[in-house]
Amino acid sequence: MSQQSYPVVKPYLKTHTLVPENQETPIEFIQNDTIPSRLFYRRNHFSYPSLSHSNYWLPINGLVSAPLLLSMQDLLQMPAKTVKAVLECAGDKRSFFKPKVFGEQWEKGAINQGFWKGVPLRTLLERAGLREGAKEVVIEGYDYGKTPDSDQVYTYARSLPIEKALHPDTLIAFEYNQQPIPFKHGFPLRLVVPQWYGMASVKWIKQITIINSHFSGPFQSIDYVYYPNKENNEGAFPVTTINVNSTIQQPRDMDILNRGNHIIKGIAWTGEGYITKVEISTDNGQTWTNAKMDNRDSGQYGWVLWSYEWAAGKSGEYVILSRATDSTNRIQPSEPFWNRKGYGYNAMDKIKVKIE
Amino acid sequence: MSQQSYPVVKPYLKTHTLVPENQETPIEFIQNDTIPSRLFYRRNHFSYPSLSHSNYWLPINGLVSAPLLLSMQDLLQMPAKTVKAVLECAGDKRSFFKPKVFGEQWEKGAINQGFWKGVPLRTLLERAGLREGAKEVVIEGYDYGKTPDSDQVYTYARSLPIEKALHPDTLIAFEYNQQPIPFKHGFPLRLVVPQWYGMASVKWIKQITIINSHFSGPFQSIDYVYYPNKENNEGAFPVTTINVNSTIQQPRDMDILNRGNHIIKGIAWTGEGYITKVEISTDNGQTWTNAKMDNRDSGQYGWVLWSYEWAAGKSGEYVILSRATDSTNRIQPSEPFWNRKGYGYNAMDKIKVKIE
Repeated sequence: MSQQSYPVVKPYLKTHTLVPENQETPIEFIQNDTIPSRLFYRRNHFSYPSLSHSNYWLPINGLVSAPLLLSMQDLLQMPAKTVKAVLECAGDKRSFFKPKVFGEQWEKGAINQGFWKGVPLRTLLERAGLREGAKEVVIEGYDYGKTPDSDQVYTYARSLPIEKALHPDTLIAFEYNQQPIPFKHGFPLRLVVPQWYGMASVKWIKQITIINSHFSGPFQSIDYVYYPNKENNEGAFPVTTINVNSTIQQPRDMDILNRGNHIIKGIAWTGEGYITKVEISTDNGQTWTNAKMDNRDSGQYGWVLWSYEWAAGKSGEYVILSRATDSTNRIQPSEPFWNRKGYGYNAMDKIKVKIE
Repeated sequence: MSQQSYPVVKPYLKTHTLVPENQETPIEFIQNDTIPSRLFYRRNHFSYPSLSHSNYWLPINGLVSAPLLLSMQDLLQMPAKTVKAVLECAGDKRSFFKPKVFGEQWEKGAINQGFWKGVPLRTLLERAGLREGAKEVVIEGYDYGKTPDSDQVYTYARSLPIEKALHPDTLIAFEYNQQPIPFKHGFPLRLVVPQWYGMASVKWIKQITIINSHFSGPFQSIDYVYYPNKENNEGAFPVTTINVNSTIQQPRDMDILNRGNHIIKGIAWTGEGYITKVEISTDNGQTWTNAKMDNRDSGQYGWVLWSYEWAAGKSGEYVILSRATDSTNRIQPSEPFWNRKGYGYNAMDKIKVKIE
């Protein structure tokens, strides 16, 4: 026995379910600009698929002049681009809705940021040649299974409207943070749709089909739909663009702190435009001050890091709020838009601390 | 690239803080009879201590006839015993108090079960010879630091009343699950006090002192005290014995399930006597049925595993409760005993699920 080496202390994913695997990022402890694969949140509808990588082909068919069947080799030879993007699960922060909604009780960590490299979907669509009437592009994954509300077996599949499919930053990605995409995150090919909630970024792409109608798979027409009412489907509309949002990383809710200066810090992001302002209140919304924002590295689709130095001179209980605004003038509301399946939570973030 | 091997899916500790390290066990996913070191909850007041294991000596002094200074060698040669015990943090389930209380927001996983091997503290006290007037035994750890409510530096130290110190199962432990205790859990020596909340089981033992008065260190007289009132200290009393308690492991709160049969399962434990009954309600407490209980392996200080097969034939929302009773007729209350620092939560466990 000798002097022990200083023990390693590290954060872990937070486990929600194991089959299918759903684990969230300990976002409060992420300091890096991008999230390493080990801490990338895992969100699955089904068990992991089984697919042969040695014989992988990507078909592109449907309403095209020349259907394609591409090998990985083919894809890797096409012009690729890299984007840094926030990927946020539509159910991120679901656990904060009141009244509570059913489904995975995600806290603040169903969100990721990283560099994705791939071939624009647009390049493939142009090569195949869209035919007249092409309306949506259906991307199907290799994962499949039963959903709780039906006994039928479905493949995970989603469509994009043609305009979004043709956006030059909608990628058929093959690298995450300069490595092949980890299997759990979609190896060998994953769709990456910046600015949309994560359900659009289909993993383990099996095929791409161009259609002339509106795709109505269950992950398009049942799930990932905002239902404003508890009892009926009136006023339902699809989940698409990421809402303007912010998260307080430190301190943590219900922390007990010393009197003195404390750094309040966090992230802010949006699916439209860019973040223009993050405001902090330490008196439950009576007064607000701009946080210092560091968006030098945030790029077009990244989050900004913000911080605020708080002089906590007096003992007592404090409610701290963060509120982001984006360049389209969207601002976080004080109350979330409640919807039955719990998507798109973006109320201002709120924690309570006690100064002793 | 070849057919991928099936990906490993495993639960992780849930991170609360990194310095000091506080992480909880994903108790919902524990199926084993004992919890492996990797998933043993970590609860610290301070940074990990730095201690020299190559020159480790345990002093036993104070009100004794012959103070001892024991080497690990000395200890390993004494008669040892093994106990299986539940170790539960006094703050386990703190996050469920309403109104919320400040401090680490532990969910259901600040609890552990495992086999501890060590020398009874009683053996050491007998060897040293207690002198007249011996009232408490103070166990001091190697960990130290400032507490949030003071600028003074304190060592983590706790006392036991003489009777508890002399209990034959109060151990100076050196093994956990047949291995040397992991450093993060107290290597080389840790006190293990079965039936008491975990704050009593001091890690990294530095010294043991017998005193003739009541020890009043901050972890005895400020923390680990039940304060029934928010605004004053009236009616305060110390945290000691583990309350009768139960936890539903599966399903999880706000799960969406198919119609059909579902196994509701969990654990139940107590710090007095043994568990005699676990009842389940699937109608928010209107009717109760006994769960099947498997306590063959629970031993004197272990938890029991229980399960209940629920025929969920009708769609709708269900509130499921679990309620344990022990052999001293303690029974889980429907509401917890609210106390300002949030200790000893033991209200019946409660989840809500939706059958589709």
